[in-house]
Amino acid sequence: MKTLSVAIIGMGSVGQGVLKVLAGSKGQYPAQRTVIKVVAVADSKGVAVDDKGLDPGRVLKEKLNGDLKRSGQSALDYIRTGNYDVLVEVTPTDAKTGEPGLSYITAALSRGKSVVTSNKGPVALQYKALTGMAREKGVHFLYEATVGGAMPVFNLLRTPLAGNKVLGIKGIFNGTCNYILTRMASEGLPYDMVLSEAKELGYAEADPTYDVEGIDTALKVVILANTAFGMNVSLKDVSVVGISSITPDALKLAADDGYVIKLIGEVRPNGAERVLKVSPRLVPKMHPLSVQGTLNAALIETALAGDIAVVGKGAGSVETASAILSDLLYIATTS
Amino acid sequence: MKTLSVAIIGMGSVGQGVLKVLAGSKGQYPAQRTVIKVVAVADSKGVAVDDKGLDPGRVLKEKLNGDLKRSGQSALDYIRTGNYDVLVEVTPTDAKTGEPGLSYITAALSRGKSVVTSNKGPVALQYKALTGMAREKGVHFLYEATVGGAMPVFNLLRTPLAGNKVLGIKGIFNGTCNYILTRMASEGLPYDMVLSEAKELGYAEADPTYDVEGIDTALKVVILANTAFGMNVSLKDVSVVGISSITPDALKLAADDGYVIKLIGEVRPNGAERVLKVSPRLVPKMHPLSVQGTLNAALIETALAGDIAVVGKGAGSVETASAILSDLLYIATTS
Repeated sequence: MKTLSVAIIGMGSVGQGVLKVLAGSKGQYPAQRTVIKVVAVADSKGVAVDDKGLDPGRVLKEKLNGDLKRSGQSALDYIRTGNYDVLVEVTPTDAKTGEPGLSYITAALSRGKSVVTSNKGPVALQYKALTGMAREKGVHFLYEATVGGAMPVFNLLRTPLAGNKVLGIKGIFNGTCNYILTRMASEGLPYDMVLSEAKELGYAEADPTYDVEGIDTALKVVILANTAFGMNVSLKDVSVVGISSITPDALKLAADDGYVIKLIGEVRPNGAERVLKVSPRLVPKMHPLSVQGTLNAALIETALAGDIAVVGKGAGSVETASAILSDLLYIATTS
Repeated sequence: MKTLSVAIIGMGSVGQGVLKVLAGSKGQYPAQRTVIKVVAVADSKGVAVDDKGLDPGRVLKEKLNGDLKRSGQSALDYIRTGNYDVLVEVTPTDAKTGEPGLSYITAALSRGKSVVTSNKGPVALQYKALTGMAREKGVHFLYEATVGGAMPVFNLLRTPLAGNKVLGIKGIFNGTCNYILTRMASEGLPYDMVLSEAKELGYAEADPTYDVEGIDTALKVVILANTAFGMNVSLKDVSVVGISSITPDALKLAADDGYVIKLIGEVRPNGAERVLKVSPRLVPKMHPLSVQGTLNAALIETALAGDIAVVGKGAGSVETASAILSDLLYIATTS
């Protein structure tokens, strides 16, 4: 059995999900001959450290009860000096600066520590630099959780579709928008009413701009462009239209012809046909991208395997933690 | 760069697809730092061998032109004595005996050679023995191409869903049945007429029993049961109903309520809820398993990631070769 010591930076929804998952398995992954040990957890208040291993369930309980004991160290200090194998960086996304995640990830990679992240900011803004640093140090920089939550995309490209040239990727990458469009279509309700309902149910943020205006989807398009296709683009290169002007009438007209309207992000690599866009589009009802509720879906167009679609839960604490876990076990089995 | 020497046994649709794919890439897979070299190809007439490497494009052309030069050796003799790293066993499935694939695979594994196969017979009949032999010798026995052609299932479980407990798998695993049901539903045509059409188009065999009576799907259910869940079952343990008694009326009634009828194979592991069955079932129109034409689809129910669906081409020479290629590159990157 190999032991992988992880430091979890960020104890919001995703960080708590990771702790919950590791508490459930007691960190034991016999199929991968791996034990995952949590040696540090950090939030904005400080860092709790134990090189011999923290109990994930107890840490989670203490965090929720407000009685987690932290050292005076800052997260960045710990990242620069602590004893861990992999940094699990799960702080919130800042699409403009990538901070504080960007500094955390840089500090870990520059020490030759592998990094697993769910943070879209650093991957969208500095993918080339970060992945170059990881390559130079011979460590991993993995980010499955940044696109599609539990829905595998990067891991799918890496192993099950290995050897395939990827020609394009399009999909539904935002569960909030998909929930709103699904409800509007099924109930014939106007946008504003469904948005209010989504807020009440916790499917939309108090300020939903980031989701409904397509910015979150565009960020994922940038990540896919830079990672899967080696492009070097940023948010300003993506043509973005959100869903706020979609009417029940438009959805009804589409339905009458056998279509649904979905917010689709699409990337096709450089060349005459270069596409980088987010917009509401017609999708045939029985098409693999015609999925309902908060589901995400991706259609990966490949040279050999043809079109491969994957559908899964795009968000959720434990679901996103599952993506992080798959990255951790990939590191364990290939290091 | 690592060189992986492969011996391809079987030069039907799948074997030819593998040669075509390797001819296209010249065997070069820089992302995996791997060169795949074909050192032998065999069909029922004999074996063509060159330890320095055969040209896959030329071999394919010669096979199709009928002027491929073979040695007097039998495939089994070559497998027992030849110089190769991985046996690519792509002879036709015999669901009753598993032969000749079973003898070929056994001969290679017992020499400590890794095996990649598309042959459902040996995996359905002798999974436990074969995988035990591979483990004992410290080599790989991989079979992604046996279920769902280009649609990844086993590779998906192994890496992107690593660490997840799989609770059940159900799906559409036969493109012929899905084509027939899709055409019957969209055109309101009777079964016999669509079956004739499917035969003309090459989507159904002259004797379609194996597909339309659900036997092919049941074989895949057996493979999933034994591999993904460690069960020890065979065809006789699967409850099987095919599609030959489905009427246009039944499809129309389903459609009126927002459903389609699909031939679904399902496996859930041992216990009170054990399920091993193949039958036509109602699927909501916008469900991820509601896919059309010859597409295959699988819904994998997991403990952490929730339900993950994957959709892809279930057959086709190059598509199935893509699954074999992903297995070969997995061996290259983990050996």
